[in-house]
Amino acid sequence: EAVPRSAIELRCQCISTHSKFIHPRFIQNVNLTPSGPHCKDVEVIATLRDGREVCLEPTAPWVKLIIKAILDKANTKPETVS
Amino acid sequence: EAVPRSAIELRCQCISTHSKFIHPRFIQNVNLTPSGPHCKDVEVIATLRDGREVCLEPTAPWVKLIIKAILDKANTKPETVS
Repeated sequence: EAVPRSAIELRCQCISTHSKFIHPRFIQNVNLTPSGPHCKDVEVIATLRDGREVCLEPTAPWVKLIIKAILDKANTKPETVS
Repeated sequence: EAVPRSAIELRCQCISTHSKFIHPRFIQNVNLTPSGPHCKDVEVIATLRDGREVCLEPTAPWVKLIIKAILDKANTKPETVS
């Protein structure tokens, strides 16, 4: 759990995925890793507010919705660039 | 750049965002951080294959497409659960 994710990963990080819904308020951030030579799986790892890291199922509708919700919140900001 | 992202962040991580398209093949992973008390902005930070970290604009259509593409790739895996 303490391995910095900025290091190049050499293998899959997730052994299993959490299937139950996690409320977005408990999610500190979400990390998406495409599949690649290091791992054939797409990996979605949520860091919770209590510091725990949880692997989420990338195909689960609620996971996609949470990611969409995070991005959509950015849309509601007023434009600051002229 | 070397700060482990699993630590609780106390402020915004992005000073500015990269606006030009980055090909997904150069992206090692993407980290999404919802806005919160630590930072009013939604932050999308891509780690590139060369180790660099780049802040992306969460409202940019190409950024959303890349995130969608990463998740959609998970759909093409054959089902392994009976």
